[in-house]
Amino acid sequence: MRQRLIESGINLFDEKGFTETSVEDITKELQVTKGTFYYYFKSKQQLLRDIHLGYIEYLLNNQEEILKDPGKDSKDKLRATIYMIIHSIQSQKKSARIFFREMRNLAPEYLKQNMEKRDLFRKNVQRIVEEGVREGCFEENLNTDMITRGILGVTNWSYYWFNPEGEVSDEELTDIYLEMILNGITKK
Amino acid sequence: MRQRLIESGINLFDEKGFTETSVEDITKELQVTKGTFYYYFKSKQQLLRDIHLGYIEYLLNNQEEILKDPGKDSKDKLRATIYMIIHSIQSQKKSARIFFREMRNLAPEYLKQNMEKRDLFRKNVQRIVEEGVREGCFEENLNTDMITRGILGVTNWSYYWFNPEGEVSDEELTDIYLEMILNGITKK
Repeated sequence: MRQRLIESGINLFDEKGFTETSVEDITKELQVTKGTFYYYFKSKQQLLRDIHLGYIEYLLNNQEEILKDPGKDSKDKLRATIYMIIHSIQSQKKSARIFFREMRNLAPEYLKQNMEKRDLFRKNVQRIVEEGVREGCFEENLNTDMITRGILGVTNWSYYWFNPEGEVSDEELTDIYLEMILNGITKK
Repeated sequence: MRQRLIESGINLFDEKGFTETSVEDITKELQVTKGTFYYYFKSKQQLLRDIHLGYIEYLLNNQEEILKDPGKDSKDKLRATIYMIIHSIQSQKKSARIFFREMRNLAPEYLKQNMEKRDLFRKNVQRIVEEGVREGCFEENLNTDMITRGILGVTNWSYYWFNPEGEVSDEELTDIYLEMILNGITKK
């Protein structure tokens, strides 16, 4: 039931917005009582927090797998990161949009927790870039902080437009973006 | 007065959200009557539309200047585009965030108008990339649509984190991103 309430929350928050959705909208959709909702969540805001946590922890867990793989050099890890984010659009699109759009509706203590995890994810990507610089695989004078934010711009923006069922697959889009980030678009 | 109502709307929509802001909140801040508001705008939604239009037309007007400059080749035009967007963060940050966040609160006919202008802006950037391919300055086999969306991901994402008063200036950030997009981060 908890999972069904979360899913219903994801659909309604994405469609109508957090403020515009009431607990009643959620329970009505599932044909359960409000008591059922409050058995699992203290408030609508706690449901929002759990949706946010679910999304960022999905990313962090997948990232951990990538980071600890001893067979991957920094280019491989960068590719795996870009693919992981783009591939997650299929299952996480709505959660991700809620994550980016409804952050200011989180209570301060939830927001802080959320930001820390988000920063950790970004810093981990930056570690990959820095590792590549140390290994002599990426340019020496990179501003690794700005470059990391640029890479995450490319991937995160795709949540707003990429259709995994469209002409370009998530594998292909990963290759297009990895190639641009690694080698640029200038004719060699 | 119209401009002051727009500015007050921008501040409140950005801070509290469109749905959470009433016409009264806006008029109270300016110490004017509701009648004053309705003299300039039919509804709160029309104010939102005008904020959206103001932002996208700011971008389109600046883009036109760049496109018609005969002294610029495609790399120059790409640089000018990236700089224009990053530079606009200082004056347009709040409008841009409202633009991306509150789009679904526009009435269907306003949304359509909005999307058309947004698509025009993106297609114009794509024309620069295509021109570069034709001139032999960019790689032949680029997927110009996906690359354009990637470039706009880098720039648009910066609305969410870039602080023009921070350590990196808008000129420097432009150079960092232009270099990544043109030549990549791999060590040459």
